[in-house]
Amino acid sequence: MAFYEKTLDSSVKYDGHILRVRYDTVELQNGGTAFREVVDHTGGVGIIGVTDEGTVPMVRQFRYPFMAETLEIPAGKLEKGEDPLACAVRELSEETGYSAGRFVSLGTLLPSPGYCAETLYIYLALDLKRGNQHLDPDEFLNVEYYPLKKLHDMTMSGDLTDAKTVLAILKAEIYLGELK
Amino acid sequence: MAFYEKTLDSSVKYDGHILRVRYDTVELQNGGTAFREVVDHTGGVGIIGVTDEGTVPMVRQFRYPFMAETLEIPAGKLEKGEDPLACAVRELSEETGYSAGRFVSLGTLLPSPGYCAETLYIYLALDLKRGNQHLDPDEFLNVEYYPLKKLHDMTMSGDLTDAKTVLAILKAEIYLGELK
Repeated sequence: MAFYEKTLDSSVKYDGHILRVRYDTVELQNGGTAFREVVDHTGGVGIIGVTDEGTVPMVRQFRYPFMAETLEIPAGKLEKGEDPLACAVRELSEETGYSAGRFVSLGTLLPSPGYCAETLYIYLALDLKRGNQHLDPDEFLNVEYYPLKKLHDMTMSGDLTDAKTVLAILKAEIYLGELK
Repeated sequence: MAFYEKTLDSSVKYDGHILRVRYDTVELQNGGTAFREVVDHTGGVGIIGVTDEGTVPMVRQFRYPFMAETLEIPAGKLEKGEDPLACAVRELSEETGYSAGRFVSLGTLLPSPGYCAETLYIYLALDLKRGNQHLDPDEFLNVEYYPLKKLHDMTMSGDLTDAKTVLAILKAEIYLGELK
């Protein structure tokens, strides 16, 4: 059985800088009608860099929705129409100063597909070369360095909770383990 | 160095059924001013059930934001003030018919902490007993059964992209492997 819903009506309720909210009326497959609230977002990238020594540059910053600091992999929003890999190169360099000889796709991630149309592209960056961080004037973050094995433990203990970060750590471990 | 931002003003731009959007003015730590768009959401749960034979009940359904079917672990929204574990028990039973002798927390997950205040609670359900699915009249989904090892491969190949699903599969594997 294939599932579907058909858009009968769509109304933009909020059109902001980084997100848009739609309230849509849909026809269900039993002929009934339902309503769907959707957050549209251009999407973004997350990059787990692993040095030849197995060290990962992580980013500590303030996340306003939680009024708290988080520790995450470097990440950023896609500009409209931007290639995800180009965005990954840019964000890794801006936030950590690193450039990478090689980017491996770790796949895409849908953070909250029930109501949010955001897609994240996750990359593993290898053959890293250190350069200088160059943040926007209103961007505040610290780069901290962790062994990948330590990040695994922090993922399982619940110290790391950001979706893209947890996924990137566990997938990178599996990917790198399979290379051995 | 501790990071912070201070709320100077907050304005609700959309107040819907499952989400709310705020546009806040904040004071940065350099004294500057910035604006933050925040999606408020009550949060939810995701449950990976693993039978004694290593089989996982998965849910196939239509996800309107992507106009596509997805394969995900059973999940649902928290009612206001609801205990996450109670919600997990309810959603697993409603969507798949299973009840569990034991729930293990696999931690929390922040799907998109840059702009979204949603928290997901992830559980591993063990000692499963099969019963009857009981969906809402407007809820359409199929339950499909996969070996956990197959789900691992589907995660790494990119066939599975839902954040809570990927995280639950990889964490459950690690957790169950450590029990051996």
